[in-house]
Amino acid sequence: MPREKAARLSDVAAVAGVSLATASKALNGNTRISAATRERVRAAAERLDFRPDALARSFASGRSGTIGVLTHRAKNTFARPVAMGAIVQLGAQNQAALVYDGDVQESKAMSASIRELRARRIDGLLVIGDGHEHTSPSLTHYFDVPVTYIFTASRDPGDVMYLPDNRGAGRMATQHLIDTGNTRIAHLGGPERSIAAERRQAGMLDALTAAGLEPVGPVIHSDWTRVRGAAAMAELLQSGAEFDAVFCANDHLALGAMETCAAAGLRIPDDLALIGVDNWEGTVVDQAGSRQLTSVDLELMELGRLGATSLTTTDHTSGEHLTTPTLALGPSTHPA
Amino acid sequence: MPREKAARLSDVAAVAGVSLATASKALNGNTRISAATRERVRAAAERLDFRPDALARSFASGRSGTIGVLTHRAKNTFARPVAMGAIVQLGAQNQAALVYDGDVQESKAMSASIRELRARRIDGLLVIGDGHEHTSPSLTHYFDVPVTYIFTASRDPGDVMYLPDNRGAGRMATQHLIDTGNTRIAHLGGPERSIAAERRQAGMLDALTAAGLEPVGPVIHSDWTRVRGAAAMAELLQSGAEFDAVFCANDHLALGAMETCAAAGLRIPDDLALIGVDNWEGTVVDQAGSRQLTSVDLELMELGRLGATSLTTTDHTSGEHLTTPTLALGPSTHPA
Repeated sequence: MPREKAARLSDVAAVAGVSLATASKALNGNTRISAATRERVRAAAERLDFRPDALARSFASGRSGTIGVLTHRAKNTFARPVAMGAIVQLGAQNQAALVYDGDVQESKAMSASIRELRARRIDGLLVIGDGHEHTSPSLTHYFDVPVTYIFTASRDPGDVMYLPDNRGAGRMATQHLIDTGNTRIAHLGGPERSIAAERRQAGMLDALTAAGLEPVGPVIHSDWTRVRGAAAMAELLQSGAEFDAVFCANDHLALGAMETCAAAGLRIPDDLALIGVDNWEGTVVDQAGSRQLTSVDLELMELGRLGATSLTTTDHTSGEHLTTPTLALGPSTHPA
Repeated sequence: MPREKAARLSDVAAVAGVSLATASKALNGNTRISAATRERVRAAAERLDFRPDALARSFASGRSGTIGVLTHRAKNTFARPVAMGAIVQLGAQNQAALVYDGDVQESKAMSASIRELRARRIDGLLVIGDGHEHTSPSLTHYFDVPVTYIFTASRDPGDVMYLPDNRGAGRMATQHLIDTGNTRIAHLGGPERSIAAERRQAGMLDALTAAGLEPVGPVIHSDWTRVRGAAAMAELLQSGAEFDAVFCANDHLALGAMETCAAAGLRIPDDLALIGVDNWEGTVVDQAGSRQLTSVDLELMELGRLGATSLTTTDHTSGEHLTTPTLALGPSTHPA
């Protein structure tokens, strides 16, 4: 099998009929080389499809073309699209990703990875979490290159963070319920100490307040699971509160709530409208595209993409950068 | 915020009280340096947590520490765990992943990526597909480093390929149906021109033949979707064939079949046992762990991991390397 060899600078010099030094200077735009010679070298380089050798280039520039990526449990369902979005975007910027998977909540557990990344002379670092449940220790001081936190918040507010807009998601979900004619809106909340759950609830209050409404019924906190969603919905129904819609903090809670409603003979959305958050493909939509639920999509691949882009743009500024969620309509709410 | 600087060779030399050249030779194990001096330099390097500079090292060795990764539609649900498995494994080997996402079925569309990867002096290449439906053009001749195809087969049988064991999955699914007391086993097949679907069906015949059984009913081919699974199951029921179990080529077909069975008043697994392939978390199991289906897991993260490992081991040998599927028990078959 023939293996094509990449053109070298010496090939370009030979074709252009100049010395190696002249070819190098010409390609670097050195104006001490005549315009005619520069053009001849450029044309030769183009014809041979010459690319400056990346190793030599990076050795000369002190840049490795490699971005470190610390992931927190990359096997996690939600972390995966964020990480893939980031890594594919790095590739589009011709940057390689050196990925260490571990526990970014524990900086000690990361120390071996941190040492390796420093030795590797990375040009930047992405710290990718698995949701905005808690904050992560800041690792920024270990590095003298830009560091961006994605899908987790650093404990240092001066760090650069890319996060899903959980408050905006709560606002968007609730606004959709209001826009489709509901005024008595209850909430099935996430875990009590989760930042994401808190923000989704705050977003709900934003939308209700703006519409002159008040939340209905007790807020029942639970974990993010379907089983707990079913139980929380039963509790809500037994509370005696009267409501015509429920904003569920995620899709699993909403699907559990839906089961309880079905068992209680409530029709969705006629007797009760339901909306969730995540729009997770396997959960709310099957492969054939039949959808069970209206949901708010946190756009996790886009989150990863934007976080990766931040390392090379002027957007590398302190604080929280939020991605915009989108509404995914389904049969659990009335059409707008 | 203090930024710790990584120790340099000059720091090690100073601490050990030797020249830079001696420190370098000592760390490289040069026996012209006395054992005592080598030990002193080694101890200094360890105390300062000195790591040889990766850029200088790679420039000297001609190795970039970077593996090229060409992905085929990395957003695809099934491609994602394979790619993440591979990229996390590369990180564990201290190798960076330079990922270009495109269409690996079209080598022309890949040409810009191929040029960039050649310029980057990668140490190896992973070509990651999104399933073993068709074959992909071989890109191996463009590179003079090891190339491994994962989750897609190259058209050149001399290439190194890592694939899920689709035939083994069909065999495992069918054997489970036999082991749980079924003798009349029908099949809902995947698309007619899909290699994966063909192999799953061949695996079914392997298991039946070994048990002295024959397949029951017509094999109805369809796409991989739930909607078509429901229709195919209806067709199978109307065929007049008598069967007590169905091996469905994937989980979506099985879930569609389950809907048709429910509508027809058939109890699963008492009247009919069902098994699928994929064990896709969002499809067969919800976050709370309540599972609808018995399925065969193709172990896609492990597939990515093994493929990535192949570049640095002696397993980089021609032909197909298959990962072993596992059985994931659920309520759609009788307990073994």
